[in-house]
Amino acid sequence: MTDHAAIEALERRFVAAFCMKDVVQIMTCFAPGIVVFDLTIPRQHVGHAAYAKDWEGMFARIDGPLDVELADLAITTNGSSLAFSHSIVHVAGRRRDGGTVGHHARVTHVYEKIDGAWVIVHEHVSVPIDMATGKPDFQSKP
Amino acid sequence: MTDHAAIEALERRFVAAFCMKDVVQIMTCFAPGIVVFDLTIPRQHVGHAAYAKDWEGMFARIDGPLDVELADLAITTNGSSLAFSHSIVHVAGRRRDGGTVGHHARVTHVYEKIDGAWVIVHEHVSVPIDMATGKPDFQSKP
Repeated sequence: MTDHAAIEALERRFVAAFCMKDVVQIMTCFAPGIVVFDLTIPRQHVGHAAYAKDWEGMFARIDGPLDVELADLAITTNGSSLAFSHSIVHVAGRRRDGGTVGHHARVTHVYEKIDGAWVIVHEHVSVPIDMATGKPDFQSKP
Repeated sequence: MTDHAAIEALERRFVAAFCMKDVVQIMTCFAPGIVVFDLTIPRQHVGHAAYAKDWEGMFARIDGPLDVELADLAITTNGSSLAFSHSIVHVAGRRRDGGTVGHHARVTHVYEKIDGAWVIVHEHVSVPIDMATGKPDFQSKP
């Protein structure tokens, strides 16, 4: 399997676990020393334990499974143990408080091959801000 | 000069050009095929020309030089032609309309060594969203 194919498989595994709200499976996709700039506050999460708590907090507010779709996934490898991708993730679902979740976010993943397996070592997820309104654009278009 | 030192020098050059609002110098830090997820809408900028226009639009609204400070810069190299960093950038200044600019943003840079020189091939800049208020947190704390 090429590095490109292995990383694509990692992303598919991540999305499947995200849909199922399976934090244990999700965390197998990330390196222990992961540094995350997530969509929501706080500024950053450093390390497995902190990031697992972030996922648990998010999923606690969600009713039922999530619909998660990955688009525009562009993976760059160069034959070394470092690689990266950028993509757009669409997340949709129902909140326990009756509201809905539905946004398109930009995702950057940096990967390292550790002991023969690719894992995410850095994640950056965001939506762009409309400075005219001061509000986030959760439905940004390409 | 090590790859780490060369990339750190690239970041210093980028910040100096950002302070001076020098779009030509700024663009020498980026690869022609740059893909950018910027702090502000739209979702993305692809290629030198589109991204230069983004900078010009931003600088047109700013009065005088900017105060730009880079913090928590963590660079990862692995001896190959790919590397990345994450950091926090603080930008402060005056807008022509009398308002002020002042935010802390999260920055991810992916670099490639092309023809012997490191350039940024992917940039992701953002602030996290406070979902309780629906607003961006421009002053996020670590």
